[in-house]
Amino acid sequence: MTDKVYKLIELVGTSSKSSDDAIQNAINRAADTLRNLDWFEVVETRGTIQNGKVTCYQVSLRVGFRLE
Amino acid sequence: MTDKVYKLIELVGTSSKSSDDAIQNAINRAADTLRNLDWFEVVETRGTIQNGKVTCYQVSLRVGFRLE
Amino acid sequence: MTDKVYKLIELVGTSSKSSDDAIQNAINRAADTLRNLDWFEVVETRGTIQNGKVTCYQVSLRVGFRLE
Amino acid sequence: MTDKVYKLIELVGTSSKSSDDAIQNAINRAADTLRNLDWFEVVETRGTIQNGKVTCYQVSLRVGFRLE
Amino acid sequence: MTDKVYKLIELVGTSSKSSDDAIQNAINRAADTLRNLDWFEVVETRGTIQNGKVTCYQVSLRVGFRLE
Amino acid sequence: MTDKVYKLIELVGTSSKSSDDAIQNAINRAADTLRNLDWFEVVETRGTIQNGKVTCYQVSLRVGFRLE
Amino acid sequence: MTDKVYKLIELVGTSSKSSDDAIQNAINRAADTLRNLDWFEVVETRGTIQNGKVTCYQVSLRVGFRLE
Amino acid sequence: MTDKVYKLIELVGTSSKSSDDAIQNAINRAADTLRNLDWFEVVETRGTIQNGKVTCYQVSLRVGFRLE
Amino acid sequence: MTDKVYKLIELVGTSSKSSDDAIQNAINRAADTLRNLDWFEVVETRGTIQNGKVTCYQVSLRVGFRLE
Amino acid sequence: MTDKVYKLIELVGTSSKSSDDAIQNAINRAADTLRNLDWFEVVETRGTIQNGKVTCYQVSLRVGFRLE
Amino acid sequence: MTDKVYKLIELVGTSSKSSDDAIQNAINRAADTLRNLDWFEVVETRGTIQNGKVTCYQVSLRVGFRLE
Amino acid sequence: MTDKVYKLIELVGTSSKSSDDAIQNAINRAADTLRNLDWFEVVETRGTIQNGKVTCYQVSLRVGFRLE
Repeated sequence: MTDKVYKLIELVGTSSKSSDDAIQNAINRAADTLRNLDWFEVVETRGTIQNGKVTCYQVSLRVGFRLE
Repeated sequence: MTDKVYKLIELVGTSSKSSDDAIQNAINRAADTLRNLDWFEVVETRGTIQNGKVTCYQVSLRVGFRLE
Repeated sequence: MTDKVYKLIELVGTSSKSSDDAIQNAINRAADTLRNLDWFEVVETRGTIQNGKVTCYQVSLRVGFRLE
Repeated sequence: MTDKVYKLIELVGTSSKSSDDAIQNAINRAADTLRNLDWFEVVETRGTIQNGKVTCYQVSLRVGFRLE
Repeated sequence: MTDKVYKLIELVGTSSKSSDDAIQNAINRAADTLRNLDWFEVVETRGTIQNGKVTCYQVSLRVGFRLE
Repeated sequence: MTDKVYKLIELVGTSSKSSDDAIQNAINRAADTLRNLDWFEVVETRGTIQNGKVTCYQVSLRVGFRLE
Repeated sequence: MTDKVYKLIELVGTSSKSSDDAIQNAINRAADTLRNLDWFEVVETRGTIQNGKVTCYQVSLRVGFRLE
Repeated sequence: MTDKVYKLIELVGTSSKSSDDAIQNAINRAADTLRNLDWFEVVETRGTIQNGKVTCYQVSLRVGFRLE
Repeated sequence: MTDKVYKLIELVGTSSKSSDDAIQNAINRAADTLRNLDWFEVVETRGTIQNGKVTCYQVSLRVGFRLE
Repeated sequence: MTDKVYKLIELVGTSSKSSDDAIQNAINRAADTLRNLDWFEVVETRGTIQNGKVTCYQVSLRVGFRLE
Repeated sequence: MTDKVYKLIELVGTSSKSSDDAIQNAINRAADTLRNLDWFEVVETRGTIQNGKVTCYQVSLRVGFRLE
Repeated sequence: MTDKVYKLIELVGTSSKSSDDAIQNAINRAADTLRNLDWFEVVETRGTIQNGKVTCYQVSLRVGFRLE
């Protein structure tokens, strides 16, 4: 059997800058411990508010990587 | 009973600049009349098109705040 | 009968820059062959990862236009 | 900042006549106290039954209006 | 234990006249064999087309009734 | 291979009269250019409001037709 | 063919005590007339309010049982 | 009133062979006691695992039949 | 027009005791300022964890009340 | 702009043999008139029943292809 | 980059006592091997039935914790 | 506390043969490193197309196993 198998994990990236940056932060962290990261899917975008400003974007995403 | 209770309202922010800016615009407006704004959740991202360009991002979001 | 009728098509725009740019790219392409583009609705945001970096944002969106 | 912001509220209109009439009843009531009502979205259609007849259509809908 | 228990069944009513009439037809039929019909919830509205006309509305609905 | 294949397109019909009429309007328009229209499925019902009245029902629907 | 087949029915249990008790009440009632009840899945939790108090939990659940 | 009315029931078919076979098994069983079976819709596909092998496909499906 | 119209608001009740208690707390708070509270629908159950224990149940619910 | 853009269309493939074969049939048909077919996503599996047997698998799927 | 990143895992807690207890049991177990457990979200509530009684509540939940 | 706790992971199995085979491949791979695999739930079925043929079925599934 040589058909590829992938695993999906769910992460929440955060950023004070932008929702795209929150995605990148989650993937940066995942890349510290996982190889073969292949794709992501956004599940939900949330964030925190302080004094009427967005202080933190929180993007939950599923990240897929190939199992060796 | 001292357990906190929160209320969620749904807003649609708009922006000609970016989807993140549409979120911020909605929250700016909410902060004019509501205190204790705490978090938001994006419900849907839409927009208008004119002459083949995105002219307006429309992001509907639920905004949570603590009831006093 | 003069009531307007619209058609929705689904596209996936891609961009190495940002998710908003992926939306714009899809709409640019649609505008090459369709007139009366009116609005879009984001369906899903995905992307590809290489070497622990987001290399491509993929945003699927429904695009509505008036039938003449 | 001059970008428009909208608020969505959720209502349930009822009518013994038709589901369309239930929608209109909810909007009539909203117009008593809110200005700038702009659009609605049907969330769910339910109803009550008595003696094997529909006695009441209950349509829940989200109603959007521009914040001034 | 005297708390009430209800059962939900799912029906598809059809009508060549209107979607509301399809709902009523389903409930009429249910009332032939079931007592205590109490409420309905629309699940989906579909229909058939012939020669460019709606020939039949098909409304699937969940119908609740009290168990004795 | 003689198994039938169908295509689904998504339309938004509009009507100032009723939601059922909005469905019919969308199908009328589709029948101008497509043959073998077979069925429809309602996706969403929305509408516009002016002066506290429903001025337009907007029903988005998927319309299926057989490919020849 | 000896592979098992199961049927799912949907019930709404009610209780003035708790949401778990509403589940149990629905299952008690189902057990009066059905054998081989095997599992349940909560579909929705609702309830009624009187004088600012929850007076009744209403839990709709799907109940599965083996067909003999 | 001669418009047809259909009922939908939900079954779970099981099979050690394939997911398609699990569908067929559920329908075989339904046909033992119901006439006019007309269509099915797959709701969910699950299964059991033993010693790292799929030992049973479990397909829940809604089965529609015309009420006489 | 004498058909009833209801409004739905969304609240998040919290409790360190139980999820049912979180529901009751949200409704208690709503009853401070709103009359005619009629029913609730649970939207989501979440909670906070500290030292491996559930420290707070957070239940978001839609609460319906009749408009006068 | 050299970022790729894809279009998604929705088809329903049918087969008397298997659900996988219904997928293949839809794609075969799409390949008659479209180039660059790239991926598919199953939306729903349904089928017809005659004399207690599955006579036709109907699989609706979204098919993606690159726009040139 | 000092923005926090969280991971979500999905567990199913079981309990013969209550659905809240099933949640606590899942979190107790997670705390055996994971630090920084922060929040949970209920995904689904199911259970097993024996002799017409709920014998086991099964609550699947997503548990979030901060990655160090 | 002796109540069982389960963990769910999400995998994507692939196969050039069939969607059922893609499920089995994912489970084979999971069994290499995990004990007590107990059940799976199909989340989504996708696939790749080359030259108008399905070249690969990709089935994402949640796999549950008991924590010891």
